[in-house]
Amino acid sequence: MLITPGKLLSQLHTPEDLRKLDSSLLPQVSQELRQYIIDLVSVYGGHFGSSLGVVELTVALHYVFNTPEDQLVWDVGHQAYGHKILTGRRDNFYTNRLYGGISGFPKRKESPYDSFGVGHSSTSISAALGMAVGARLSGAQNQQSIAIIGDGAMTGGMAFEAMNHAGALNNTNLLIILNDNCMSIDPNVGALKEYLTDITTSHTYNRVKEEVWNLLGKMSQFGKNAREIVSRVEDGLKATLLRQSNLFESLNLRYFGPIDGHDVDHLVHVLNDLKNIPGPKLLHCVTVKGKGFAPAEKDQTKWHSPGKFDKITGEIFKKVYDQPQPPKYQDVFGNTLVELAEQNEKIVGVTPAMPSGSSLNIMMKAMPDRAFDVGIAEQHAVTFSAGMATQGSVVYCNIYSTFMQRAYDQVVHDVCIQELPVIFCLDRAGFAGADGPTHHGAYDIAYMRCIPNMVISAPMNEQELRNLMYTAQLTETQESKKAFTIRYPRGEGVMPQWKTPFEKIEIGKGRKVRAGEDVAILTIGHIGNYAVKSCDILELEGISAAHYDLRFVKPLDKALLHEVFQQFDKVITVEDGCLPGGMGSAVLEFMAENGYHAQVKRLGIPDRIVEHGEQLELHRECGFDPEGIARTAREMMTAPAIAL
Amino acid sequence: MLITPGKLLSQLHTPEDLRKLDSSLLPQVSQELRQYIIDLVSVYGGHFGSSLGVVELTVALHYVFNTPEDQLVWDVGHQAYGHKILTGRRDNFYTNRLYGGISGFPKRKESPYDSFGVGHSSTSISAALGMAVGARLSGAQNQQSIAIIGDGAMTGGMAFEAMNHAGALNNTNLLIILNDNCMSIDPNVGALKEYLTDITTSHTYNRVKEEVWNLLGKMSQFGKNAREIVSRVEDGLKATLLRQSNLFESLNLRYFGPIDGHDVDHLVHVLNDLKNIPGPKLLHCVTVKGKGFAPAEKDQTKWHSPGKFDKITGEIFKKVYDQPQPPKYQDVFGNTLVELAEQNEKIVGVTPAMPSGSSLNIMMKAMPDRAFDVGIAEQHAVTFSAGMATQGSVVYCNIYSTFMQRAYDQVVHDVCIQELPVIFCLDRAGFAGADGPTHHGAYDIAYMRCIPNMVISAPMNEQELRNLMYTAQLTETQESKKAFTIRYPRGEGVMPQWKTPFEKIEIGKGRKVRAGEDVAILTIGHIGNYAVKSCDILELEGISAAHYDLRFVKPLDKALLHEVFQQFDKVITVEDGCLPGGMGSAVLEFMAENGYHAQVKRLGIPDRIVEHGEQLELHRECGFDPEGIARTAREMMTAPAIAL
Repeated sequence: MLITPGKLLSQLHTPEDLRKLDSSLLPQVSQELRQYIIDLVSVYGGHFGSSLGVVELTVALHYVFNTPEDQLVWDVGHQAYGHKILTGRRDNFYTNRLYGGISGFPKRKESPYDSFGVGHSSTSISAALGMAVGARLSGAQNQQSIAIIGDGAMTGGMAFEAMNHAGALNNTNLLIILNDNCMSIDPNVGALKEYLTDITTSHTYNRVKEEVWNLLGKMSQFGKNAREIVSRVEDGLKATLLRQSNLFESLNLRYFGPIDGHDVDHLVHVLNDLKNIPGPKLLHCVTVKGKGFAPAEKDQTKWHSPGKFDKITGEIFKKVYDQPQPPKYQDVFGNTLVELAEQNEKIVGVTPAMPSGSSLNIMMKAMPDRAFDVGIAEQHAVTFSAGMATQGSVVYCNIYSTFMQRAYDQVVHDVCIQELPVIFCLDRAGFAGADGPTHHGAYDIAYMRCIPNMVISAPMNEQELRNLMYTAQLTETQESKKAFTIRYPRGEGVMPQWKTPFEKIEIGKGRKVRAGEDVAILTIGHIGNYAVKSCDILELEGISAAHYDLRFVKPLDKALLHEVFQQFDKVITVEDGCLPGGMGSAVLEFMAENGYHAQVKRLGIPDRIVEHGEQLELHRECGFDPEGIARTAREMMTAPAIAL
Repeated sequence: MLITPGKLLSQLHTPEDLRKLDSSLLPQVSQELRQYIIDLVSVYGGHFGSSLGVVELTVALHYVFNTPEDQLVWDVGHQAYGHKILTGRRDNFYTNRLYGGISGFPKRKESPYDSFGVGHSSTSISAALGMAVGARLSGAQNQQSIAIIGDGAMTGGMAFEAMNHAGALNNTNLLIILNDNCMSIDPNVGALKEYLTDITTSHTYNRVKEEVWNLLGKMSQFGKNAREIVSRVEDGLKATLLRQSNLFESLNLRYFGPIDGHDVDHLVHVLNDLKNIPGPKLLHCVTVKGKGFAPAEKDQTKWHSPGKFDKITGEIFKKVYDQPQPPKYQDVFGNTLVELAEQNEKIVGVTPAMPSGSSLNIMMKAMPDRAFDVGIAEQHAVTFSAGMATQGSVVYCNIYSTFMQRAYDQVVHDVCIQELPVIFCLDRAGFAGADGPTHHGAYDIAYMRCIPNMVISAPMNEQELRNLMYTAQLTETQESKKAFTIRYPRGEGVMPQWKTPFEKIEIGKGRKVRAGEDVAILTIGHIGNYAVKSCDILELEGISAAHYDLRFVKPLDKALLHEVFQQFDKVITVEDGCLPGGMGSAVLEFMAENGYHAQVKRLGIPDRIVEHGEQLELHRECGFDPEGIARTAREMMTAPAIAL
């Protein structure tokens, strides 16, 4: 379906075209760009509210700055649809987030206008500061570096680290634009949010003014002249206080704002002024997520990434099924946690700014005192969890696999070295799908497996997830003083009737899913369901494949592996995770330690960056979809084993 | 050598004893504690300046708070010697940092007074907040949680993440004590430091006061009454401004201070007051690192951890050698970087607060514009480096192996996914020695090896370090768009004449160090020098061992490995890194992919927490000292291979 851009927008192929327009036309450009985004996303899906919120900012930035020589870094990048449309990707935007199509995030390979690839939060100030310094060193004195960062991303520690550094580099042309919409995907939490609201609504100023006024009021006895002077004192105070009582000024960033982020004329005016002010500075823009599309303004979480919808009625289209469907793993997590917490009062839940993404919002609603959204702050989330664990809390810390990379040191240093039994639930493990390489949970098995005092498990279905969650909180498990990781993928499981009774799983115990004679397939987690299909395919061809669900990468089920390697000389390992150092490697280590010499083929995510697409498309590309696994088994059966 | 505590200190065995004293005796306790630390460290070595700086604070905290029920979390922990001495470890403090002795850092296993193990920076607020919330949930309403954090550690992002969260939890008993001494190991950098100085010296207040005074001055025309009112306005302003214009108040932490951290009476008074103020709060204490020992006050970096010294003259004892000694690897790095940077103007250096630890201070002195200390901010350091790399800078980002865990996501997300050729120099890779498990660089091979677009190398000696550094900056290497990691250990190399001419090393090319027939030993990095000795030991016993220095873990030298596995059926891999997922695993993966079935023994850091001690002691414990390697070879020669 072709989306028709508005009259002005249709003539804009590059920002250069935009810059040729008279500034009086920018409101219309903004309007057309907003409409185009609504038209596009309603038909093709994707991130929505964030991009609507920065339409005017996007237009103003490309109008004022000399992109791509001047460098724009969009933090996270959910908000960059307008940017992409204005920078040469309007006509293939319909491929957004599709296999082989353009990325949902800015990406250096895709366009020179995408100065820095993004996806994870809070990187933009560091990157832009590096660009500013690099540009200065290479003699590009006039080059501007601009980070556009939301107030949610501002809570991530590295943004603060970057500001602390930037504030000490007075000779650096850095502009930080704080896109303040009080939202991440969910509403923002934390003191910073309150503070920004406070600035915006001038509570602080008003409070100070009131106190001073009470004192100055007494001057009125001195008549009209005194009144006038009091008024001038007030003006001076206002200017002084706004400048001094400011978090950002504390860090030696010149602070400007707050200004209305939807007034494109004013934005252009202010940005032009700021271009000529040297040194590090911050412009505070207040915007509305979902601006210009009423339902999205009203329910901003729902409309962060709504899927396809009716742009007239605001109805979000949902697939309709004839029969019950399996739930999302995240919802099994969210509901099961509440069930467990009802039985075990020590249980608490932690999420870094992903209440709806992790479904911890179910517990936050049911037990608000025991479920914590700590902000975009994975590092803090893990050590905060460790602190609670020292007091006997049983902590389920839910972090997407890809975001757990942010808290790696805390897992090692604050949890595992100290033998604190924190339970890590790693959602979105394996390929994330349309979000692409920044969001793939590719490395967690490898980076977690090397840490001592760590159990690593993955459920093959909903029942196993429930039972692993149940097992992790048992007193005996907690007393083992090991962290307990449960990884599971994005999306649905396989059991429409998922709410099964809890059963303890012996730690380090796998299971035989299917007996066979010719080849053994070892899997970990949900991807095991592919192997079930592979075995069916192979059976039709007369190949008898056994299937084992390891369930634990650490500790490995040694009894099961002895059984496998005593019976089979052809073994395939399958994991939705990276091959170097992954589950397959753990199996090879077991073999080396025990003197087994079977032929082993390891299937998983190869040692390269895999782009975005549907999960199945990516699994197929990497050769571990059901047919890929079967093909590998077939090849092992026919090819002679290399023996040396 | 027995160190005799002073008269009062000798009677204090627990904080309970301290709390029985009349508060008038606390200055004397402080004095005796300070002297005891000076006596101890002068004889046994260890961290020094930080502990001297918090003597009064330590005494006051244990006097006022009900430890260990109340929880003290010492950030980093360098400063906790006084705490350890007061909490039952005075008499075995002489074992500090020795193999089998007490840890140089607070450690939960060691004492109930060590509420939370530390070592890495900026964790204390998260941990203490978790404790406070956990205590509240478990019904321990009166329990106090106190984080003591330096102004250096305050620049670490997770401290900010924690404050953002804490400021939103009004019902939580959390006290943050900001120990402001303007120092990390090196002088602090960044805007926060300036800000704290500004608060302390009241520049901001004075500036505001001046502006307001200019306006109010005109009121004088109204006579004496007006003057009085003006004076009252001033007082009101002062209180208001100090409260409002504050970074920490911005985050909804009640701010108290700054106060003199060396006035124990006042500290006791203030802490007693704060104990009764609910909610999250921060006390700003100004201290002097090295307080009470003049040479340490004067050169605070040198006296951070001076080694043994003459406590009268302040002379630091250095070993004297008859002949030239090999340099420290870090100094080879520091000097070589300057050499390279003189030839290649694109080269820049980055360190997160470790100028002297990494020896980047050599470049900071020689080329201040091109060497950056970014503060305790590993995450920012990596993405800042990535930003510079986009502008064509050739960035050597030097981070200790253990601290690189803090920037793991940035390595994946901002460097490797984007194919930016940042050069990572990982100092202190392998066992760190006396600093112990929080500082061991045990995991880097495993956690780096799973990331695509990454070269991983390790030099066996100084010449190789120089040549790897040289190779990494060559245009062709930079154009390969891969990050380039060079890991090397703490301490000295093996070449007194280390300043060899530069030679390019082919990426992924290992070398045969010694030919042999019976068994092949594959090593990576400096630990290869052990294998040289092992081969000598084995030769005397009639075992002919070949030795290969892989030099690269990624990419592996496949030609060399084919040669090895075609010739040998007994292979030993040796690495100063963790066994799960490490170099040995990479070799097993190569074998599986190529159908080799040799018997392989992997030596390295086992899958458990290894405590502190001399590096050689730890290598011996783990069986990969020279004799341990030889023993493994011997056993492989005599034991029958298991073949299945």
